[in-house]
Amino acid sequence: MGGGEITKRGKGLVLLAVIPFPEDAAKETLAEIREEFPDLEYHYIFQKFVINQNSAPGGDVDVPADLLKRVNVLVTISWLPKTAAEVPNIKFIQFISAGTNHVAKHPIYTDTKIPLCSANGVHGPQIAEWVVMMDLIHNHNYIDLYKKQENKDWKHNGELSSRDNVGKTVGILGYGSIGRQVARVAKAMGMKVLAYTASPRKTPESKRDNGFIVPGTGDAEGSFPSAWYSGLDKESLHEFLKVKIDLLVLAVPLTKQTTHFLSTQEFALLNASNPSGTYIANIARGQVIDQAALIKALESKQISGAALDVTDPEPLPKDDPLWDAPNVLITPHVSGVTATTGERIFQVVRENLRRLRDGRGLVNEVDREKGY
Amino acid sequence: MGGGEITKRGKGLVLLAVIPFPEDAAKETLAEIREEFPDLEYHYIFQKFVINQNSAPGGDVDVPADLLKRVNVLVTISWLPKTAAEVPNIKFIQFISAGTNHVAKHPIYTDTKIPLCSANGVHGPQIAEWVVMMDLIHNHNYIDLYKKQENKDWKHNGELSSRDNVGKTVGILGYGSIGRQVARVAKAMGMKVLAYTASPRKTPESKRDNGFIVPGTGDAEGSFPSAWYSGLDKESLHEFLKVKIDLLVLAVPLTKQTTHFLSTQEFALLNASNPSGTYIANIARGQVIDQAALIKALESKQISGAALDVTDPEPLPKDDPLWDAPNVLITPHVSGVTATTGERIFQVVRENLRRLRDGRGLVNEVDREKGY
Repeated sequence: MGGGEITKRGKGLVLLAVIPFPEDAAKETLAEIREEFPDLEYHYIFQKFVINQNSAPGGDVDVPADLLKRVNVLVTISWLPKTAAEVPNIKFIQFISAGTNHVAKHPIYTDTKIPLCSANGVHGPQIAEWVVMMDLIHNHNYIDLYKKQENKDWKHNGELSSRDNVGKTVGILGYGSIGRQVARVAKAMGMKVLAYTASPRKTPESKRDNGFIVPGTGDAEGSFPSAWYSGLDKESLHEFLKVKIDLLVLAVPLTKQTTHFLSTQEFALLNASNPSGTYIANIARGQVIDQAALIKALESKQISGAALDVTDPEPLPKDDPLWDAPNVLITPHVSGVTATTGERIFQVVRENLRRLRDGRGLVNEVDREKGY
Repeated sequence: MGGGEITKRGKGLVLLAVIPFPEDAAKETLAEIREEFPDLEYHYIFQKFVINQNSAPGGDVDVPADLLKRVNVLVTISWLPKTAAEVPNIKFIQFISAGTNHVAKHPIYTDTKIPLCSANGVHGPQIAEWVVMMDLIHNHNYIDLYKKQENKDWKHNGELSSRDNVGKTVGILGYGSIGRQVARVAKAMGMKVLAYTASPRKTPESKRDNGFIVPGTGDAEGSFPSAWYSGLDKESLHEFLKVKIDLLVLAVPLTKQTTHFLSTQEFALLNASNPSGTYIANIARGQVIDQAALIKALESKQISGAALDVTDPEPLPKDDPLWDAPNVLITPHVSGVTATTGERIFQVVRENLRRLRDGRGLVNEVDREKGY
């Protein structure tokens, strides 16, 4: 072999995982990787503390220098070698987080060209299910039904009549891995899908999702939306909100432009387009919504309700007026907390091992200029 | 024209609807029908009382004899002309109920060959959404999340970790209009679908759903299941339950064979195949499950939980032990109660008007021998 080439069985590949969860959390996928690459040399070091995404990378990890020298693939959340010289044989670094902002000031990020890959896409199905669940709970009056159960009260007089999703429209602000899986399920429920993206997606190529996609999910080709809208300015957003939307899903990254993207004017527009009331699901960041305006929109029934896995601030204080707003469902930023993350992360690792072996471009490679 | 032919615009067609809901409940579809068949002669009579499905047909309806003589299409829930002689020009009778058992002893049923059509299929999307909702509520620990909200408690320590549906298996006992729509959504969530039917479905033709399907939903060709099982005997059922099933949906009609179809032995089998616990959703009839055995299975954690829109008996008395069983969610037979039923029913009417005009076979025509 020589020359750093990798055999089909993985001979010549040294992988080091420095991760804050037990290997058991990725048991099945690790077994599959070992079956596919039986000659892969695999090392695992438990990193005791999960580093807060906002804090500096580091952590109390002791990695033997001679191992480091031989490593080709590093799987990590925050721990990094101090310089590129420590990892002369590195091919890529696979982060287990969806973003890499937390290491953006590290020399490995700023002073090297070592390919860095994120785990973006692993949370799509989980969070999409949260959105679908909340939408159904709202449409099927499940909270009322649950209260009946709590009272062991079985009677009803048809007052719990609900409305299914057939023929309704879902508008997805931010058509990434989460939004695309919402679209897949919504389409299966008989809904019409509208996509909204930062930049225009006019060509088939631009509509594609080139990141990691959990197999069997998502919208790789961008084929579910019946229409695409785009723009980071409010004027563009308003064009979108002029369409009657039954379910509006917020899945945009928080930026200067998307801060308070939904405010007084936007709620008024939603109401004008859909007087019976749009339902809003926010799995982006609390600050994407002007929360004071949201409370007013809920109180005045401009919208039919809101499901919020994110709030402003977090944790939401006990005395925040949002708790008392009508038709609001609040969960404590759990939509992505899943027992399967470990498996999914190593599915990304496997995909990149395959691509490395086959000499194809890596998936989820971070563009250091753009920062994602 | 002549000879009872119908023009493209509906000239020559007299439709009489004797129904227990206001015309407004089907407003949109009625407008579409009038647009498609502008020359159709349409009559509407409100039938004051909804007749219980188990009681005799009838109702206090006064239909002018001369109108009846001219009627080609009768839309009804229970009211029927006394004899075929009263409706010499009738082409078919469209029931707005999923079944026609409630009129099975009426002379029109027993002594005539007037085509009778059911509204089977109209409830598919609504009830399928109930199943999906309950499955998600279970997997995402939503009851715990809701209780946190009730306490204005935002904190969590990852203890609310949930599991999405990707890679899981749904087993659908009774692959009719509801089961097929569950399959469509489950597939979109990344699940594997197993179908169970009374009789074997070996050929493509036998796998088809030839009844009314709400456009954009269901599984017309039977293409979602990766495997099909069948049989009304317990031995056949046990073959099916030997497969690891994560979500078991009960959507079979209640018959002698399906009474207590799930009992002690079946729960033991489910547990052997899936020790982490199958979740059961019952939207069939309460009696399909041996409820005492279900309570034991829940208490001993042989299954992970159950969502029950139907119970034995109904209403479920306040002191029934089922209320206190762990991991059970109970709703009072509401999964099919929807504000859109009126529209859906007239979608079936429209489909049959088209078929009558085009000389094609009617949809949902009842086989008097089989009784459905």
